[in-house]
Amino acid sequence: MSTLHRRALLSLTAGAGLLAAGCANTTSTATTPAAPALQGTGDLGVVIERALGALTLVNTSTRQAIGRVEGLGDLSHASVVFSRDGRYAFVFGRDGAATRVDILAQKITHRVMQAGNSIGGAISDDGRLVVAQNYTPGGIKVFDAATLELLADVPATMPNGQRSRVVGLADLPQRRFVYSLFDAGAICIADCSDPRQPKVTTLPNIGKQPYDALLSPNGRTYIAGLFGEDGLAMVDMWAPKLQVRRILGGYGRGEQPLPVYKMPHLRGWAIAGQHAYLPAVGRHEVLVVDTTTWEEVGRIPVAGQPVFVMARPDGRQVWVNFSVPDYHRVQVIDTPSQTIIDTLEPGKAVLHMEFTPRGESVWISCRDSHQVQVYDTHTRQLQASLKVDAPSGIFFTARAQRMGF
Amino acid sequence: MSTLHRRALLSLTAGAGLLAAGCANTTSTATTPAAPALQGTGDLGVVIERALGALTLVNTSTRQAIGRVEGLGDLSHASVVFSRDGRYAFVFGRDGAATRVDILAQKITHRVMQAGNSIGGAISDDGRLVVAQNYTPGGIKVFDAATLELLADVPATMPNGQRSRVVGLADLPQRRFVYSLFDAGAICIADCSDPRQPKVTTLPNIGKQPYDALLSPNGRTYIAGLFGEDGLAMVDMWAPKLQVRRILGGYGRGEQPLPVYKMPHLRGWAIAGQHAYLPAVGRHEVLVVDTTTWEEVGRIPVAGQPVFVMARPDGRQVWVNFSVPDYHRVQVIDTPSQTIIDTLEPGKAVLHMEFTPRGESVWISCRDSHQVQVYDTHTRQLQASLKVDAPSGIFFTARAQRMGF
Repeated sequence: MSTLHRRALLSLTAGAGLLAAGCANTTSTATTPAAPALQGTGDLGVVIERALGALTLVNTSTRQAIGRVEGLGDLSHASVVFSRDGRYAFVFGRDGAATRVDILAQKITHRVMQAGNSIGGAISDDGRLVVAQNYTPGGIKVFDAATLELLADVPATMPNGQRSRVVGLADLPQRRFVYSLFDAGAICIADCSDPRQPKVTTLPNIGKQPYDALLSPNGRTYIAGLFGEDGLAMVDMWAPKLQVRRILGGYGRGEQPLPVYKMPHLRGWAIAGQHAYLPAVGRHEVLVVDTTTWEEVGRIPVAGQPVFVMARPDGRQVWVNFSVPDYHRVQVIDTPSQTIIDTLEPGKAVLHMEFTPRGESVWISCRDSHQVQVYDTHTRQLQASLKVDAPSGIFFTARAQRMGF
Repeated sequence: MSTLHRRALLSLTAGAGLLAAGCANTTSTATTPAAPALQGTGDLGVVIERALGALTLVNTSTRQAIGRVEGLGDLSHASVVFSRDGRYAFVFGRDGAATRVDILAQKITHRVMQAGNSIGGAISDDGRLVVAQNYTPGGIKVFDAATLELLADVPATMPNGQRSRVVGLADLPQRRFVYSLFDAGAICIADCSDPRQPKVTTLPNIGKQPYDALLSPNGRTYIAGLFGEDGLAMVDMWAPKLQVRRILGGYGRGEQPLPVYKMPHLRGWAIAGQHAYLPAVGRHEVLVVDTTTWEEVGRIPVAGQPVFVMARPDGRQVWVNFSVPDYHRVQVIDTPSQTIIDTLEPGKAVLHMEFTPRGESVWISCRDSHQVQVYDTHTRQLQASLKVDAPSGIFFTARAQRMGF
């Protein structure tokens, strides 16, 4: 655990003690609404308050906080998926808790401590199954999305009898899920069509220590990053026989290892048109890769070590944030010209960005300024500023409509 | 009007008298709910009842009708867009009415007769403006999405003083809208950033009689079909200077004109990976076009004259329906192999198809069987069958999250 955690999570935990004493949430009066009015869910979302273990609920049409839900435990690392109807957020916390939050009623409906140490979750395309990926004890667990009843416990047992940490979980069609085993160097596909009896297919020898992974927006290409060596492991999920192909042999710390302040998130990778835009590891560059050959075709110099490299939904822009010490900046790449067209300074310790579904706005969490900043992506003018205590991840309900989360 | 209407709309109106006497709607008791419960909107949708001028409201998680709204007028041709929150459906009817329906409360909130003859509408990316495209009087009208208050009337006046019919309307970012002028052979972009004073840019001489158009899913490529000649007119909306390029010179009735029973809908065009799949006009073929060169690279023989050629959201499948006399069939193309993998017979007079957002199901309207059939796209097994009176268009709220509708 130690090396992976020290590197990957150092910057995520560094700010936990920086809580500004006077930072009252502006919407605390909305915590216990008396009789919630009818409301659509297509423009709602949640912001993780990482220090207080709470969610700020937001509306992207009014660009305001609409409520708050407390009692989610340790959210120093957290991820969220949504029910098909957009009403429920499933929050996976660092402490192994899985919590189902009713965004409309603004309350927790179900909560289970399902592991000692967890790194995220996913939801099946039919919305019926929620799966958690766990470090301790290593494996995945399958839950009924309506009740959080445990349907199956799938340990990631290695040939030596020990269990591997699980990373890089993503949903595939037909109640299948793909994930990687950090300690076993393997990629697994769990078919949960019979959710109490999942069938697991394992692809071994994919490379040393996969630490994160992504699924392309169309669900076809699964790519795992390797912590223990350079390069990446790729699987074509549409192939009749699944097999691993190694790509981008130089990806990683490369021939001249550099200090890496934070391993970039693979899930942030942008695929726009024919190109993928990747955070270089340890270098102040964004790599441009042709998605037909998976060869590098260019590098764009940026203002620091990139963490998230995210495409606006139309692919015309790619937004980049950075690790310490450059995490007060955000840069914007214009993809047709592959040049940087803007550098913003939204606040202190930019941790995450989320685009509205049609891309007209981007929401940026600034942990140490206790602000979420909303920008017009076309003009880069500030549209709104929300006070939120130590915000980290931002998740909008439109994620329910997409694969690979 | 005559030629266009006779060809394009004949099959849309042919079935209006075929109403089965005993076809009661199964959910009529839900028409006036007493106190609507809290409900997410991400998995809701509407089905046009074309003969009765009503909507059947549906839930794609339970695969059931959840209610019904009447009083929408002439829906013999109708299209729908949704508010950002997924709560409101804006219905544009053949008779020139624009109606705002509250899907949660199951009632009409606003309704205006805004033209004598209308062909559809669009909504701005910020959700504030709704625009209708009208045949009579020719032009567009801009409305406040919250109230349907008229903000601007933009006549499509030609140099000779007469007005052109408007077709092919789609939303662009930043409160802009693109559309085509059937009688003027032009493409227009209306900038409604000041909605009471739209600024219109006109690209003239695009070709004879554009009759429909589509915008690619990323909002970059606008393509208008030409009724008066072969070929298509394309505009790159990201170019610094907008200009029209003619593509696919043989597209249309071609060197050997064939009887055309129904002009195919351009909006159904599938763009999957690097290829677009297009309905051939009058021929029993789907054309495969490379979207980098816009050259034809293949043809797939199909069971009739294609009408809608639609990609499943992941692009792995393309589903095709047909004009009379083959409109009882639906075919499924596997895009990696470009072969037909299934032929279904869902019912009589298949008019429309809509995929669930993550593509696990497809809903198919069978007008003359008074059924909407729901299929698992992976297994092609029937998942549900809903009784709906003369169903035509099916629209799910996830459309609110996408450009180009």
